[in-house]
Amino acid sequence: MQVKNTLLLDALKCKETPRPPVWMMRQAGRYLPQYQAIRSTMSFLDLCKNSQKAAEVSIQPYEILGVDGIIMFSDILVPLEPMGACVSFDSGKPEFKSPIRSQQDIEKLIELDVPSLETKCSYVFETIEEIARRTHNEVPILGFAGAPWTLASYMIEGGGSKDFALIKRFTYQHPEAMMMLLDKLSFTIANHLIAKIKHGVHAVQLFDTWASSLSQEDYRLFALPYQQKIISQIRAVYPDISITLYINGCANVLDMMMESGANCLSIDWRMNLNDTRNYVLAAHGMAGFPKLAIQGNLDPCTLLAPKSFVIDATKYMLEMATNDPGYIANLGHGILPEVPVENALAFIQTVQAHKC
Amino acid sequence: MQVKNTLLLDALKCKETPRPPVWMMRQAGRYLPQYQAIRSTMSFLDLCKNSQKAAEVSIQPYEILGVDGIIMFSDILVPLEPMGACVSFDSGKPEFKSPIRSQQDIEKLIELDVPSLETKCSYVFETIEEIARRTHNEVPILGFAGAPWTLASYMIEGGGSKDFALIKRFTYQHPEAMMMLLDKLSFTIANHLIAKIKHGVHAVQLFDTWASSLSQEDYRLFALPYQQKIISQIRAVYPDISITLYINGCANVLDMMMESGANCLSIDWRMNLNDTRNYVLAAHGMAGFPKLAIQGNLDPCTLLAPKSFVIDATKYMLEMATNDPGYIANLGHGILPEVPVENALAFIQTVQAHKC
Repeated sequence: MQVKNTLLLDALKCKETPRPPVWMMRQAGRYLPQYQAIRSTMSFLDLCKNSQKAAEVSIQPYEILGVDGIIMFSDILVPLEPMGACVSFDSGKPEFKSPIRSQQDIEKLIELDVPSLETKCSYVFETIEEIARRTHNEVPILGFAGAPWTLASYMIEGGGSKDFALIKRFTYQHPEAMMMLLDKLSFTIANHLIAKIKHGVHAVQLFDTWASSLSQEDYRLFALPYQQKIISQIRAVYPDISITLYINGCANVLDMMMESGANCLSIDWRMNLNDTRNYVLAAHGMAGFPKLAIQGNLDPCTLLAPKSFVIDATKYMLEMATNDPGYIANLGHGILPEVPVENALAFIQTVQAHKC
Repeated sequence: MQVKNTLLLDALKCKETPRPPVWMMRQAGRYLPQYQAIRSTMSFLDLCKNSQKAAEVSIQPYEILGVDGIIMFSDILVPLEPMGACVSFDSGKPEFKSPIRSQQDIEKLIELDVPSLETKCSYVFETIEEIARRTHNEVPILGFAGAPWTLASYMIEGGGSKDFALIKRFTYQHPEAMMMLLDKLSFTIANHLIAKIKHGVHAVQLFDTWASSLSQEDYRLFALPYQQKIISQIRAVYPDISITLYINGCANVLDMMMESGANCLSIDWRMNLNDTRNYVLAAHGMAGFPKLAIQGNLDPCTLLAPKSFVIDATKYMLEMATNDPGYIANLGHGILPEVPVENALAFIQTVQAHKC
């Protein structure tokens, strides 16, 4: 259904907009006292599974900050549970009590199609429908998922990682088992995003947050093909849906991000936005790539600075973005829990005061 | 004094060598049972301060693996203690019990000249002299230090960090205090490296490991100028000494690394070695930079793979390096404790069997 605020969907398609749209990764999160109030009454996973409350926290940043898109509250690890990988957030961090250690562990994982996901993760789709009901199609709703390498890293490392030694050792020792895991994840994640679109999200974002820990050669073997599989599987059903690809620390893989099939690249703050836009524009012209939007890229730590600094840094980001179509203002990674709400608001409002 | 194995010093100066020299960052470390045997008898910090034992573990990788350079065993945080910043390794990780929280904390820090360092860190220089005595100038000895941004990150975060939120918040809120801290560290670190050269190291490496967490703009303000200060302060005393600059995740700051004054850039595995060498060579030609050597860049996790894979990956690295002068084979970051010694040996021997 058509939404009233079309800024975000237009910018994703590289159409002209009167100003850039703006939202923030992890915007439904701990920096908001209203989020904390709800989280204090239930666990993180219970909140993910409670579609009324999940819808409520998803909408908070729209009501409080006026962002141009609502990303549904959830977690990239949510679809792994029905596959048979049990994740807990009891310690405050994601933890797999039985990390993958063998091909047998991978063989046991269940690949899920759209109907199975609709049954087993019904709360996800109810959350989307509840957000739509409450917001009357005022702004677009975004869905998201983790990409296979990033999800596999949690499943093999057992949680977050500094050097990704366990997943890389597993990959080098058992490349075929690894590819089986990545294939199973690709199929399920693509269906998960297809089901989200079916239930009402207007665009999706794929997070391959940790894929930049790979060398370029390994990225081409273990990250890119699975991003491509997911994106082409989605486009086979929804050819016009906007798909954004995010990688943290993407300088070394920007060329390959352009090959993913995503129509928007979400970049981190280590890249110069102007250089990146010029580089991507040049690549289109030269190699016949479709037009790509760019999303980003303020250092999330900037929002910890004095408010005047936040405003100046946001203006600098907008200057680097240029006024060419196809730009979505955002952070270069998720907003931090320590950020003062007034600084997040200063970021949003500085973008919204900008004229293209 | 002239060393017998000149491969490393020649390659650092971009002179022709019959094969690339090879060593490994953190080569005196936990993957070696002989190192573990000594560490089991004393704490990490006691080992740093015991020049006989520190010399012994420094030499182990030379004796066991036949590396082409001996990097003295120590830690980048060692010179901070005489400045007045108390660091502990009791938990196995570096920990500052009183992290920097104010300008007053910075004002209290003592800047140290060469004689003060020779007095207060005498064990460091005795270690160098002991290594020289034991190895009879067979191979070059390398000294190292942390660069100011990286050291400051430990001092403000209180230890390692994932997002560097505390140091960045401090930087944005108190930029002048931050610059005072970086200045004090620069002066002391330069003198620390000057004293190391005076006492016998043949080349030095500066680790700004975490500087790539900065945006390019912040790197130019808070990392590059202090690398430059250190390097020019050293070159004022030792104009011909080879200085290598290492940054983990350097893709976004490679251009600025070339401006540091270092004559060798040590790059991580996320960069393609061939692209990097071509890029750096082109920049020389265009902008009149002095010739730069490149060091790197095998993913340390590769050494967790089966041995045949290690050999193939090392050969691929050598192919990407090309046979042009000015290349030092190394890992893209420190060797991991879990690496089998035979795999480290396979890496070293594969390089040493290569003909330029």
